[in-house]
This record gives sequence, C-alpha cells and structure tokens, in this order.
Amino acid sequence: MKTLIDHIQIQCFGNQDAPIVDGCIAIDNDRILYTGPRGGLPKDFEEDVTIEGTGKLALPGFINAHTHVAMTGLRGVGGDRDLFKWLQEEIFPAEDRMTGEDVYWLSMLGIAEMIRNGVTAFADMYNFEGQVAQAVADTGIRASLSRGVLSGPGEDARFAEAKELYDTWHGEAEGRIRTMVSAHAVYTCTDTTLIRVRNMAKEMKVPIHIHISETGKEVADCIREHKRTPPRYLHDLGLFDVPVLAAHCAHVDEADMDLLAAHEVTAVHNPVSNLKLGSGIAPVPRMLEKGVCVALGSDGASSNNNLSVLKELRTAALIHKGAARDPLLVTAYEACRMATVNGAKALGWDDEIGTLEAGKKADLILLNTTAPHWIPAQEPCAGLAYAAQEADIDTVIVDGNVLMENRELTSIDLEEVGVKVQEIHDRITKK
Amino acid sequence: MKTLIDHIQIQCFGNQDAPIVDGCIAIDNDRILYTGPRGGLPKDFEEDVTIEGTGKLALPGFINAHTHVAMTGLRGVGGDRDLFKWLQEEIFPAEDRMTGEDVYWLSMLGIAEMIRNGVTAFADMYNFEGQVAQAVADTGIRASLSRGVLSGPGEDARFAEAKELYDTWHGEAEGRIRTMVSAHAVYTCTDTTLIRVRNMAKEMKVPIHIHISETGKEVADCIREHKRTPPRYLHDLGLFDVPVLAAHCAHVDEADMDLLAAHEVTAVHNPVSNLKLGSGIAPVPRMLEKGVCVALGSDGASSNNNLSVLKELRTAALIHKGAARDPLLVTAYEACRMATVNGAKALGWDDEIGTLEAGKKADLILLNTTAPHWIPAQEPCAGLAYAAQEADIDTVIVDGNVLMENRELTSIDLEEVGVKVQEIHDRITKK
Repeated sequence: MKTLIDHIQIQCFGNQDAPIVDGCIAIDNDRILYTGPRGGLPKDFEEDVTIEGTGKLALPGFINAHTHVAMTGLRGVGGDRDLFKWLQEEIFPAEDRMTGEDVYWLSMLGIAEMIRNGVTAFADMYNFEGQVAQAVADTGIRASLSRGVLSGPGEDARFAEAKELYDTWHGEAEGRIRTMVSAHAVYTCTDTTLIRVRNMAKEMKVPIHIHISETGKEVADCIREHKRTPPRYLHDLGLFDVPVLAAHCAHVDEADMDLLAAHEVTAVHNPVSNLKLGSGIAPVPRMLEKGVCVALGSDGASSNNNLSVLKELRTAALIHKGAARDPLLVTAYEACRMATVNGAKALGWDDEIGTLEAGKKADLILLNTTAPHWIPAQEPCAGLAYAAQEADIDTVIVDGNVLMENRELTSIDLEEVGVKVQEIHDRITKK
Repeated sequence: MKTLIDHIQIQCFGNQDAPIVDGCIAIDNDRILYTGPRGGLPKDFEEDVTIEGTGKLALPGFINAHTHVAMTGLRGVGGDRDLFKWLQEEIFPAEDRMTGEDVYWLSMLGIAEMIRNGVTAFADMYNFEGQVAQAVADTGIRASLSRGVLSGPGEDARFAEAKELYDTWHGEAEGRIRTMVSAHAVYTCTDTTLIRVRNMAKEMKVPIHIHISETGKEVADCIREHKRTPPRYLHDLGLFDVPVLAAHCAHVDEADMDLLAAHEVTAVHNPVSNLKLGSGIAPVPRMLEKGVCVALGSDGASSNNNLSVLKELRTAALIHKGAARDPLLVTAYEACRMATVNGAKALGWDDEIGTLEAGKKADLILLNTTAPHWIPAQEPCAGLAYAAQEADIDTVIVDGNVLMENRELTSIDLEEVGVKVQEIHDRITKK
C-alpha cells in the first residue's frame, strides 16, 4: 500500500536537518520512499491513501531506549520513599508474584501508553520477555527485547530463556522484533556471568543491554571490589567488544566517558527516573562534548511514573542548563536527536529507523501544532523540547501501519487492557 | 444556579486532606456549598445542573503565582541563548514595539492556554496591565494584576499606571480581579522607588509583587552595592511589613530563608524558567523545612515556553530529589499544595480560593483519570506530580462558571486569538 502525507512540516534528523516547511512524505508499504518538498516527489508515485498534514509536524517516532515495560503494573507503587526499602518491601515481592500472562497484559498497557506518547520503538529488559515479544507482535510496535540475566540460583535457566528469546523472536513479527543479551548490572552479575553474556552476544551478533553506573553506591562498591569503575571493569572483561546499550551512566567520570566514546557504547540517559529515585544528574553535556552517543529512556513506570520519551526529552533539555547554570547546554535540537536518531543507535537499528529518509522504515509520528502552546509558530525542536504535550501527537505509524489516528489506538482494546491490569496490580501488591 | 458534581474522587487540600474516593461537590452560584461524601450533602440542595464525575478527580484549580502573561507573543524567541544577549537583542526590542491592544490579544492567548492547563488564577506583572485586566474580565479567569515599576525615566508615569490599575480594576469583574503593587527587582529599582512601592501597597492594603534573588549575579551585585542580600535589603527598607509575593528566590541563603519565614512572604518557585535560563535550582527543600510558604509560577512563556502549572508541579517534585540525591525531598503532596493552596496565599487570596471547602469560591478542575498513564489507580497527588498530562484536564470552573468543558473553551475564540497573536508576533519581532 502506498501512502502520501501531504502539506506537512517535517523534521527529518537525517542528513537533511533543517525543517522542511511545506513538504510531503511518500510511504511504500513499510518503507519511506521520499521525504522532502512536494516538487521532488517521484512522478510515478500513485498513493492509495492521503493523509492531510496541514497544521502538523512530522518527525521520526520517539525511541524509548531503556525500559521495563511490564512495570506498568507497579506504577506509582511506593513513591516518595527510600530506594532500598522501596525495592525490598514493594517492588521485589510484587514482581515475585507476576506470571507470564501478567507480563503480557502489563506490556499491552505500557505499549498502549507509549504509542499514545509517540514512541514507535523501545528497548526492554525483564522477565518473561517472550510475553513482551507477543505483545509487541500483537500491537504493531517495534522493540529490541532482552531477558535480564543475574548471577546466582536460576542463572542457567535465565541464560536458557535468553537463548530461547533469540531463537523464537529475533527478526520475527515482520522484522519488528530484535533481541539483545542482557546482563543486569555489575552488582548483580559475577565476572563469569558477564563474560558468558559477552560471548553469547558475540555469537548471536546482537548488542548487550546493561545498567551502568546508575548510583554513586554502585560505583563506590565496584571500585572497592574490582578496583575499577563499572565502565572500566566491563571494558576489561571485553564487554565493550560488542555494541552496548548502557542504561543510566549517571555517575561516570572523565575516563569512563572516554571509554564510552571510544567504543560502540550508547549511554541511555533516564533523567526522570534518576531524579525521582534521587540517583543524581548524569553528566550529559560533558558526554556530548566528548562525542558519546546519548539516547533517552523512561526506565520502568514504577520509577517515573510514565513511559513518555517526550517528557525525558524535555527534562534532558532543561535540567543540565539549571544544574550547571548555563543556558547553552543540551540544546532542544540535541535533545530531539537523543530521542530519535541516537535512540536508533542505542538499539543497533540505525540502519532502518531513527530518521525520516528514503529507504528507512516508515516509523513516524505526526503532531498537531495548532494548540495555544504552539502559537506563535515555533522552530520545531524548540517546540518539542519546551512546549509540546503528549496530546499533540495525533498519528503514530510503525512499519507503515497506522497504530494511532486522531489519538485513537487502532491495535489495542484499551478498556480490556485496563481492567486486566487493575486486577493484576491488585493481586500482586496484596499484602 | 446550583450545580452538583457527583460520584467523583476529590482532593481538597483543606483541613480534609485525605482523598475522598466517591464524593460530591455542591456549588451555589460562585461558591462551594459542600464537599464530601454523598451522604453529607444538605438535604434541601436541589441542583439545576449535574456533572457526572465517574472516572474523574476534582481538585482546586492550579494557581500560577508568577507570570507575565502577554509574553506569549515572544514564546520560543531566542531559546538556547545567553541570557543577557537574549534580553538585549530579542526580548527588549520586541517589547518596545508592543501596544496596549497587542497586550490584550497576547493575554487572551495566555489565558486560553492556562485554562486548558487547569489554571484558574494567576499573578501577573507587566506593562499595559489594564489590557490584561480587560482580558481577565472577558475570559472569566481570576487574577491578581500589577504594573511592573522600575526606576528611571518614566517612573512617575508607571506609578500613575499602578494607581490607575487599582482605581479601575481592584475588586472588579465580579470580584475576579485584584491588584498588587509591583517593584520589578532590586537591580532595577532605587531605594526611593522601593519605599514608594511599599507606601503605596500599605495605603491600598494590597501585597507587593517583586522578583527576588533570581540569579547569582543579582545577589552578588546587591551585596556589593548595598552590603546585604536582596531579601535583607528589602526587609530593611520595610517592604516585608506588607505581604510579599517573592518570585524566584533561587539564590537565598539561610538567613534569607529565615527572613521569608518570619514575614508574610511567599516564595514563588519557577523551576522550569530557572532551569531554562540557567539561573539555578532554588533551595526549596530547605525553605519548606524552615516553614517558608512556597508557591509555583511559570514565569513568562518566553523563558519556559509554556504556562502550565502542572509542568512546574512535576518539575518541582522531581528536580530537588535528583539535585540533592534524596528521593524523600519535595513529595508529590507538597508539590500539589504549592500549586494550589500555597498559590492562593501568594496572591493574598487564601480567604476565598486554593482549597475545595464550603464557603470558598468555586474555582476547581476535573481531570480524567482513565488514560493509560493513570492505570493502575494511583494516589491522586502521585498521579498529578508524576504521571498526569495537561490533556487529562477535562473541565475548568472559575467563580462557578464553566470555562472549559470536555476540553472545549467556552469563553474564548481560539482561532481568532491565534491569528491575531501570529500577526502581532511577526510585527514585533521583525528586524
């Protein structure tokens, strides 16, 4: 099927980076055929469907480069609490009660929320990841999924699940699903486990998804135990020999950042979760200066409490200016790139997504720019970073399929999902 | 007219502070007659109109305790720039070109935006403030308005305008308008001007609206020139003898905070503007600890870029936790109180607004709590601070009048306002 989105403002984030004021986007099934001024549209293109873009802005779908999507079931559980108590008394006991079917429905809710917030792809790490994959397949979104591996009892079973996830789902759902191998973190994995993860990633030719330097405590403990910071320790174990999605990097020093920049490591900044849990403020301006690729993630809904890359983008564009008292740090444009093209790099998927360019997958969103907060007309990136609201997102397209139109989801029965999730939540949090 | 809002969850922020799960609100013309469980509704109450509240949350309207509403005309002008250059090269020249009629239309846009964002009252400081008053009168919102006074050429005219604003508008528009007297700041006003402002406020029995300690430079300059911090300097000139709305207070020390706490001074925290302009992060946790009343403001749209107290509330609940690495600082509940009841105190209007209690003015908002980000059901304040979106706000009532219903504005023609504002913007920013 051929779709033409016409008379639309476009921000590509590709080689063509200046906004196109009055352009069009031609889509051939799952791929973008053309993006640019109307005049450049191939003469032989005959659309089956036209989407009128007047008053709208098109951009690549947001990429949520770090989440635990099924944690929607624990949204708002134990906020404004001490982190350790929160994990021990609220989160872990509830997670122990979750079944695979629960994870399916909780993922359906998280995916519904993400589509409404303009997210077209996400990177996930959790248990029962095959159930997350099923939800991705059923809803039409795109994802790179990983089974979180920790050392200790059950480790072999977790590795077996990681292998099964790859065998069953890698490249499936019309290519919308890829898998990664995940080591949870340096404080939950022994060096043996970490090396096993590295070897598995090498063998499968997929990236590693891991939490790195989320808190000061993690770094201090790692230095005490291994005489090295987490990035240096992981590097020395050979984990940076494969592409790495490094969630958080809130407490990285100069040498750490040089290591990240020198390897194929994307630092995924989770500003809202880092603020809410009191973890700190990642040195993002310095990472950008050193050429580290920085993407954005929401983390799980339990520490956020939502799955909105738009909120992360906004927060990333604001907090570093204030924390360092410098209004020139992390520009709106840089923050928008983190939310799109850099997210694609984090997922190791920048060959196909992250920009609006001919040949790429048709993963894009259309925002209404007619609400009062968009008046007078603003430069698109400034509007996105400082003024936009999730409800401005009108249309979401993934792999050429419309997953939301006029804010109505096309692939998810929200009412059914809401009832299921409330039941699950009540059961798993019961004391 | 009598209105009953039925089967609704209610967060009052008054003496009754626990959420009412299934309650009702009875409104008699402009006043709240009853808030509480259905059973307690006065037997003789007969409603003319019923609003069904199932799936909704009622709370006092948000109060934007510091803004320059007509700066919507400069939204997004010169972002990601050096503050001084931004003011000198972009903002001041454009403001010099603004006419009184411009201010009317720019205020109409700002008020439209605020109503859509759940704001029912605001405190303003600007030029042509009579035109802002006219927009307040025409739209049905509530406001406390002040003509910003600076020393130097034209000072007498500015004082005359402040007097005229009081004479013409104080108590007008069915009591929805009050006025304040405003000194712009210590760096733009001489001691003579400041004393004149104090005397005028005393005479009129209205609060003073002033910027205090917004930047480190302001504080350093004040100490150099007056051997005292801005709060101490203002205190010694007698300005704290009257109630004061102190915008920003981003750079106050221990002694400053003690001064604020000991007098009728409300510190209005503008977290987004302070971040975006690189001004810094106000010591809000410490102010709360010392008993300073802290409210929230958006500042002007040019340094934000929106007028959403919900975003300020969210930012206030997040940044202090991250900056101080303590997840227990500024709870969701505290941030929600800043946005409502403390805002009312900032405006000197807490006798009539800021909580949902019998006898208060009927200024309230109803939020839909059925979107995915509200599932599973959350404690209202946590939902508001960490998950809510502006589009959840369904109904806005001020002085008993419905100003927005099902997200449709009842008193403003948005299309007309949008066209006017774009014309004004293009004219005043033309180089």
